[in-house]
Amino acid sequence: MATLGIDLGGTYARAAVVDANGTILAADKVALSERSPTAVVESIAGAVAAALKLASDVPVSAIGVGAAGQLQGETGIIRVAPNLGWRDVPLGALLAQRFGRPVRVVNDLSAAAWGELKVGSGRGAQDLFVVFVGSGVGSAIIANGQLVTGASGVAGEFGHIKVVPNGRLCGCGERGCLEAYAGGRNLIAQLQEAIDGARPTLLKQLAAEPGPRPLAPTLLETAADAGDPVALEIFERAADSLALAVANQVTVLNPARLVLGGGTLARMPGLKRHILAGVLAYTLTVSREALTITDAELGDDSGIIGAALL
Amino acid sequence: MATLGIDLGGTYARAAVVDANGTILAADKVALSERSPTAVVESIAGAVAAALKLASDVPVSAIGVGAAGQLQGETGIIRVAPNLGWRDVPLGALLAQRFGRPVRVVNDLSAAAWGELKVGSGRGAQDLFVVFVGSGVGSAIIANGQLVTGASGVAGEFGHIKVVPNGRLCGCGERGCLEAYAGGRNLIAQLQEAIDGARPTLLKQLAAEPGPRPLAPTLLETAADAGDPVALEIFERAADSLALAVANQVTVLNPARLVLGGGTLARMPGLKRHILAGVLAYTLTVSREALTITDAELGDDSGIIGAALL
Repeated sequence: MATLGIDLGGTYARAAVVDANGTILAADKVALSERSPTAVVESIAGAVAAALKLASDVPVSAIGVGAAGQLQGETGIIRVAPNLGWRDVPLGALLAQRFGRPVRVVNDLSAAAWGELKVGSGRGAQDLFVVFVGSGVGSAIIANGQLVTGASGVAGEFGHIKVVPNGRLCGCGERGCLEAYAGGRNLIAQLQEAIDGARPTLLKQLAAEPGPRPLAPTLLETAADAGDPVALEIFERAADSLALAVANQVTVLNPARLVLGGGTLARMPGLKRHILAGVLAYTLTVSREALTITDAELGDDSGIIGAALL
Repeated sequence: MATLGIDLGGTYARAAVVDANGTILAADKVALSERSPTAVVESIAGAVAAALKLASDVPVSAIGVGAAGQLQGETGIIRVAPNLGWRDVPLGALLAQRFGRPVRVVNDLSAAAWGELKVGSGRGAQDLFVVFVGSGVGSAIIANGQLVTGASGVAGEFGHIKVVPNGRLCGCGERGCLEAYAGGRNLIAQLQEAIDGARPTLLKQLAAEPGPRPLAPTLLETAADAGDPVALEIFERAADSLALAVANQVTVLNPARLVLGGGTLARMPGLKRHILAGVLAYTLTVSREALTITDAELGDDSGIIGAALL
């Protein structure tokens, strides 16, 4: 018996038939040209049909969805999905109606954490703290072998803890969030501000170099490594905030494994070293002694596998 | 059918027969004159015998212990109990042998949180964050209706998250812990330093007033309310750290209830107001909307009731 996993991002949807061992038997991906809930459900249906056709000999029981948005508890309702421009969309009900099968919807990071727990870097652990630093900063918590969803389904919003009271404006509309300093999108914004600013900085030269070079967070590490004070300031504020916050969360949660993932972290080895050093320096000893730190193993597949296994 | 709850502090042990509704049917308390593990087990045995005699008509099945110390997972071993001067004491095994009944040992705050969840201010909730500010600062987390103990049994060590990297020395031996600024014992230490220090402060006069007046954290609020700069500095650093840390933990855990307890908090209404304002100002909106804040209801009984019900 297999289940169907759906990974709903802001620009695409993926569907996969996943067996009980977490192996992807068949998968399909569609771009989301239109973002209305009805159009997205139809796009998902296309991917689902294609995946089911590829694995037509396998009976599929239930559907799990990992969606990039804030869930309303276990209702299947997406409260806010910024990248889709959604508010209060009953995605679970829409999909259950469309497919005639039970549907469970969770946050994309929760799904990814579940995938890592079951068949990735968290295998065998009961207590996991998973941190993703991509364009945003997010986390998921697994305690006693169960996903911690919280009272209204938004547990793990680690990117929106406040690190500078009334600080930098975050994409969530609040101020001083960890993500406002350390998320990929905000690192790029801070780079751009530095390039446009009055202070001299190596960043201006690096960004002006010929050739197509996106304003990536890697630029920041290059300039910070070269000792550029402006770059160092941005880098250290991001890295120190992230390192201390991760360490403190490990102190409180006492997980067996800390799983680090996300595209920004993958492209910024210095940031990752800073987190590892921070955990070493700031985590309470008794919590640190129980901890293993690993990279996310499943990459982009963790969400779809986790959604299917949930 | 009833169970036996044991509350083991640093200076006394209490035993109570508790029914399935969390009602204490009989209880006894003994002072711990000697603190060797064997002597403590015998003291506990005395309290247990007295409690059992008072409720001799009730069959008692199992024993739950809430102990002031860091546990080694579910092994019943107390790794460190500073107030008892213990290291690596197999309390669970000692008690199981002594009483011939199954014994479960948890941290005292975990037991208190469980008591509040079952019959106190957390009734009906599945997700709870319990913060106690007494002589120390501690917390317990309940998620999905289960106690979060962590990989090695020390989850909830909220007092030892770092709020000032390499800051003030804490009783745990590490630096910059929340407890080093906001715990009752450390508030008193900071008061004493201010009184002994060179800077003029109202604290010196207040402390010199005739009559027996312990150097209580309440003195700090009195002086801070009067606008004394030295007192304000100590108060605000403690209150701001605590408020931001509680708010951030609520953001990450998304509990249905935040339960506030502990003697220091009970004696410092200003500190409590500061926490409430901080949660309002700094918790991520979607987590805050799901939250109710309540006082711990069971007082000193929460630990013993929780231990019995666990």
